[in-house]
Amino acid sequence: MKIQGLIAATFSTFNDDGSLNLSLVPSLINNLVEQGVKGVFICGTNGEGPNLTSEERMATVEAFVKAANKRCLVLVHVGHSSIAESRRLAAHAEKAGADAISAVSAFYFKPASAANMVDCMAQIAAAAPSLPFYYYHIPAITGVAVNPLDFLELAENRIPNLAGIKYTAATLHEYQACLHYGNGKYDILFGYDELLLPALAVGAKGAIGSTYTFAAPLYLKILELFEKGDIAGAREMQYQAVKMIQCLGWYSPIPTQKAIMKLLGTDLGPCRLPLTTLDVLQQEKIARYLDEIGFAAVLQSVTN
Amino acid sequence: MKIQGLIAATFSTFNDDGSLNLSLVPSLINNLVEQGVKGVFICGTNGEGPNLTSEERMATVEAFVKAANKRCLVLVHVGHSSIAESRRLAAHAEKAGADAISAVSAFYFKPASAANMVDCMAQIAAAAPSLPFYYYHIPAITGVAVNPLDFLELAENRIPNLAGIKYTAATLHEYQACLHYGNGKYDILFGYDELLLPALAVGAKGAIGSTYTFAAPLYLKILELFEKGDIAGAREMQYQAVKMIQCLGWYSPIPTQKAIMKLLGTDLGPCRLPLTTLDVLQQEKIARYLDEIGFAAVLQSVTN
Amino acid sequence: MKIQGLIAATFSTFNDDGSLNLSLVPSLINNLVEQGVKGVFICGTNGEGPNLTSEERMATVEAFVKAANKRCLVLVHVGHSSIAESRRLAAHAEKAGADAISAVSAFYFKPASAANMVDCMAQIAAAAPSLPFYYYHIPAITGVAVNPLDFLELAENRIPNLAGIKYTAATLHEYQACLHYGNGKYDILFGYDELLLPALAVGAKGAIGSTYTFAAPLYLKILELFEKGDIAGAREMQYQAVKMIQCLGWYSPIPTQKAIMKLLGTDLGPCRLPLTTLDVLQQEKIARYLDEIGFAAVLQSVTN
Amino acid sequence: MKIQGLIAATFSTFNDDGSLNLSLVPSLINNLVEQGVKGVFICGTNGEGPNLTSEERMATVEAFVKAANKRCLVLVHVGHSSIAESRRLAAHAEKAGADAISAVSAFYFKPASAANMVDCMAQIAAAAPSLPFYYYHIPAITGVAVNPLDFLELAENRIPNLAGIKYTAATLHEYQACLHYGNGKYDILFGYDELLLPALAVGAKGAIGSTYTFAAPLYLKILELFEKGDIAGAREMQYQAVKMIQCLGWYSPIPTQKAIMKLLGTDLGPCRLPLTTLDVLQQEKIARYLDEIGFAAVLQSVTN
Repeated sequence: MKIQGLIAATFSTFNDDGSLNLSLVPSLINNLVEQGVKGVFICGTNGEGPNLTSEERMATVEAFVKAANKRCLVLVHVGHSSIAESRRLAAHAEKAGADAISAVSAFYFKPASAANMVDCMAQIAAAAPSLPFYYYHIPAITGVAVNPLDFLELAENRIPNLAGIKYTAATLHEYQACLHYGNGKYDILFGYDELLLPALAVGAKGAIGSTYTFAAPLYLKILELFEKGDIAGAREMQYQAVKMIQCLGWYSPIPTQKAIMKLLGTDLGPCRLPLTTLDVLQQEKIARYLDEIGFAAVLQSVTN
Repeated sequence: MKIQGLIAATFSTFNDDGSLNLSLVPSLINNLVEQGVKGVFICGTNGEGPNLTSEERMATVEAFVKAANKRCLVLVHVGHSSIAESRRLAAHAEKAGADAISAVSAFYFKPASAANMVDCMAQIAAAAPSLPFYYYHIPAITGVAVNPLDFLELAENRIPNLAGIKYTAATLHEYQACLHYGNGKYDILFGYDELLLPALAVGAKGAIGSTYTFAAPLYLKILELFEKGDIAGAREMQYQAVKMIQCLGWYSPIPTQKAIMKLLGTDLGPCRLPLTTLDVLQQEKIARYLDEIGFAAVLQSVTN
Repeated sequence: MKIQGLIAATFSTFNDDGSLNLSLVPSLINNLVEQGVKGVFICGTNGEGPNLTSEERMATVEAFVKAANKRCLVLVHVGHSSIAESRRLAAHAEKAGADAISAVSAFYFKPASAANMVDCMAQIAAAAPSLPFYYYHIPAITGVAVNPLDFLELAENRIPNLAGIKYTAATLHEYQACLHYGNGKYDILFGYDELLLPALAVGAKGAIGSTYTFAAPLYLKILELFEKGDIAGAREMQYQAVKMIQCLGWYSPIPTQKAIMKLLGTDLGPCRLPLTTLDVLQQEKIARYLDEIGFAAVLQSVTN
Repeated sequence: MKIQGLIAATFSTFNDDGSLNLSLVPSLINNLVEQGVKGVFICGTNGEGPNLTSEERMATVEAFVKAANKRCLVLVHVGHSSIAESRRLAAHAEKAGADAISAVSAFYFKPASAANMVDCMAQIAAAAPSLPFYYYHIPAITGVAVNPLDFLELAENRIPNLAGIKYTAATLHEYQACLHYGNGKYDILFGYDELLLPALAVGAKGAIGSTYTFAAPLYLKILELFEKGDIAGAREMQYQAVKMIQCLGWYSPIPTQKAIMKLLGTDLGPCRLPLTTLDVLQQEKIARYLDEIGFAAVLQSVTN
C-alpha cells in the first residue's frame, strides 16, 4: 500500500461534559470524503488517543470504520505507554476493519536505541499481522529521536507488515533518505502540514496532517499546482497555510484547531485535560487573526 | 497520614514469558514487613505500571492488598496518559482496599503550568475521595518540571484529599520548602534513595525508593544513626548505598535492580519492553562489581 | 544587499600544531571564486570562530578580505559570549573591509526572550554601523530558540543596519514566514545544505553552508535545475548531497568535513579541541563511504 | 590545598554605563574578609566572566589580587569558548598572583565525553602549572553533563595540578562519590548555596557560592551549628537561606542578587546584556519579599 494524497489526522469528538460523542463522526467523514481526502488517521496525537481510555479508543475505531464504509482509508493509532495495551488496540483495529495501524514510541519508558525501538514496534505490529503497520516518528512529543533511517534498516527483516513511517519531524533530509531506502519500498507519509510543499519538493506523495481536517482544499491545491510544475503558485498557497498555522502556537495547538473548526461551522466539542479548551477571548483572538489574513476567503477560493 | 520510615517502590513480578506472576507477591511482602518497611508503592515507575495494562494494574493491586493484609501500607500509583483511565484505576484502588493513591503528571500531553497540573490531579484525586492522594513529582522521567511548591499552593484548596508529594528529584531546597509549606501540613516523601541522608538533613521523615525493596536494612541503619546524631556513621552507610547505586546506570536501572534481586536470591522475572532484561554477561559484571564493593557483607552487617 | 547563490561557510586553516595557517587562505578563496561561489562566511561555526582568540579572528578576517580582493563577499561572524568582545570584532571587521557581519546569540548567558535578543544584537550591530548585519539563528548549537519572525518584528525599528538572518534550522515554515516579512525586505539566507532544495521550494534565493566549501558545483547544479523547473532532477542532485552529509554525523561534523576536503586534495589542517580530528581509521571509513556512494564521480559530473 | 569554609563567588562591579568599576573591589574584599570568608571566586558565572572582554577579566584579577593582599584566597575563573583564550587567561592569573584557577567546559562546541573534557582541561591547566586547578562542573548552564567521577578518574594522571572540582549541581550522590575518590585526595567544593546543609551531611568541607557575597554570616552559622551536631538548628538556618533564594528565580538570578546587595547597602552597578538589571518595580517586589521573610533580621541575628 502506498498512499497518495492527504490523510486527515482528525480530532476527538466530545460532548460538552468531556464524554465521547461519536454521533459527530459520520458528518465529519462525509465532509472529508467529499473534499477528496484519501483517509483519516484516528486516535493519534490530534485525535487525543492518549487522553482516551482503551475502551473509548476502540469505540472510536468502530464508529469511524462504519462511517467511512470503505469510501476512505481508516488508519488507527494504537500507541500506548504499555505495549501490551497497544497490542490489544492493534488486534481490535484489525478485527474492526481498519485499513492500517500506527504507533508512536513508548513514551513513559523510552526506547534507548533504534534496535530497542524495533523490538517494541515488532511486538505491536505482530498483533495485527494482516494490517500495514506505520511507525509513527514524532520526536517533539515523545522525546525519542531514533533516526528513522536506522529504524527502517533494522525493521526491514523484523516486521513483515511494515508499510512505512508517519514522519512528523522537520528533518526533510532524513525524510528524503527514508523515501529512497530500499529503492523506495516504504511509504513515508509526511506529517507537518506547514512543510507540505518542501516535502513534495524532496519527493513526498502522501501526507497525514491535522489541518487537512478543515483545510483540505487548500492543500489539495498545493498538490495540484506542484504537480503542474507551478512552484510559485504552490508556494503562495503554502504560505497561506503557514500563516494560518502560526496562530496554532498561541495557545495549545489542538484546542486551537478545534476552535477554528467551530468558527468554520463544525463543533467537535472541548478537549480533555491536560489540554485546555480555548476560552471566549482566546477564540475571538483566533477569529480576528483568521479574518485579518483572510483565511476563509482563501479557503473559498480553492474550493470548487 | 504522615508516613515515617521507608516505603519500598517494588518491582513488577513476571513469568519468563512476560506475563504477570502474582504468586511472587506474598513472599515479597513478607520479607519487606519482616525487615521493617512501612509500606509498598506499587505500579509506579519501578513497578513498571506504565508497562502494564489497566487490568494487570488492578490485579496487581488486589494481590498486594491481600498479601499485605494491613501489616504494611499499600500505596498505588494510578498515573496514566489518560486521566479518564487514571480515574478508573483510582476508583478501583479505593474499592480494593489500598491505603493511598499517587499519580505522575500526564506524560503524552504535558501540563503547561502548575495550575494545569492541579486541574489534572484534582480530577484523579476525586475518583478516590476517601484515600490520601500523593502527587508524584518525577521530572526526569515525565519531562514536566512544575515547581512542587507552586503545586502545593494551588492544590491546597482544590484537592481535599491531598496528602502530599512523592518527591523524586534532587532539588532538596525545593523539597525543604515543601516540607515547611503550611506549617508542615503535607507529607513530602522523598524519592531518591541515593540522597536519603541529605534529605534527612533538611527534615525528611519518610521516603519511597526502589532499592528499599532489597536493601532496606542498610537504609534503616542510616535512619537510626541519623536519629542518634551520628552523622559520620550515617554518611558512611549512605556512601555504601551510593556505591551500589552507581552500577544501576550502567544498563537500564530497573532491569539492573531486578538482576541484583536475583543475585540476592529473589527472582522476580524479566522486564517488559522497552526495558531490556540484563543478559548473562551484564549480570556477571554487576555481580563482580557488587563483590568488589562488598555489598553483601555490608547488607549482612546491618541486618540483625 | 540581497545575496543570490551560495556563500561558503569556510573552515579554519591550521598548522599541524594547531596554530593558525593563513597561507592557505588565498588558494581556498581562488577555488571558491572559480567555482562560482558568491562569498565566504568566516569565523562562524564551521570556521571554528569560537575556538579562536579574538586576535586570531581578526587576523583571519584580514587574510580573507585581502585574498578575496572584492572578487567575492566576505561575511564575518563576530558572535561571542561577551557582547563587548563582539563589538570589538565588529568594529574591526568594518575597518578591515568586510562586506557584512553576523552574530549568534550570546551562548553562556542566554537571551530569555526575543526582546532581550534584539537588545543584544542591536549593541553588536551598532559597532559596525556601515555594514549589513545578519542575525545568526542556530538553535541546535546555542540552545536559544527565539522565534526568528518575532526577532524581525522587534528588530526592524531597532537595528538600522539589519540585513537579514542566517537561518540555520529545519523549520522551513518559519523560514518562509521570514522571507515574506515586510514584503520580503530582509535577506534570509538558508543555512542547512542538506535542505537546500526544500528551502528553494519555499522561496530561498541565497544560502550559506559549510559543504559549499568543497561541493559547490553539486549545489549550483541544484540551483540551476530548480530554476529551470526540473524538480525531479534537482531532487536527485539533492539526494546526492543528503547521502554525502549522512556521514558527517558519524564523528564530529566539522573535523569530518576537513577530512573530506583532505581526501579531495585540500588539507586545511586539524581542528582545535573540543573538536577532535579524525584518526586514520575514521578517515578511511569516510573515504570508503564516499567511494561507495560515488561522491567524487557525482562531483565530477556536475563540474564543467 | 583543601579549602575549608566559604568562598564568595563575587559579582561584577560596573559603572552605570556598563564599564568596569574596579574601585569597588577593595571595600567588597574588606567586608568579606571581616565576615570570615576564606576567599573569592572571580570572573565566574556570577562575576559575569563570560560577559567581559579578556582585557577586562585580566584587570579584574589584578584588582582582586591587590585588594585581597593575601588576606583571603583569590580563585580565578578562566573558562572561555576558546581554549587558546582560556590559556591566556590562565597564564595571566598565575603571573598576577592568583591562588588557583578554574574553568567551565567549553560551551559553544561542547565536549562529547569525559575523555574529551579531560583533554580540554589539561590544556588549560597546563598554562598555569604552578596553580591548583579546579574543574568547574555546572551542567545547568553549559549543558555538558560529563559525570564528574569519570572526570576525576581520567584526569588524575593527566592534570598534575588538578586540585579538585567546583561542583555546581544538585546531584549530591555523585558529589559524595567524588569526595571519596582516591581516599579523598581531591578538594570538591560545593556550589549550590541552597543545598549547603545537605552537602555538609554527605561530607562537604568547603563551598563556593554567590550568596556568600552578601549573606556569609548566615551560612557560617550553618557551618557552626552543623559542626556542633545541632542539625535541627542548622536546618532552620538553611531554611532561611532557601526562602531568600526562592526570589532569585523570579527574575534573572544574577541581577536579582545585585539588587539585593544594593538593598543591603552595597551598589555594585548594573549587569551586562543578555542579563537585565531589575527595574524599580522589580526591585521593590524583591524588597517587600525580603521584608516579609524578615531576611535582614535573620542576617542581623547571626552577625556578631
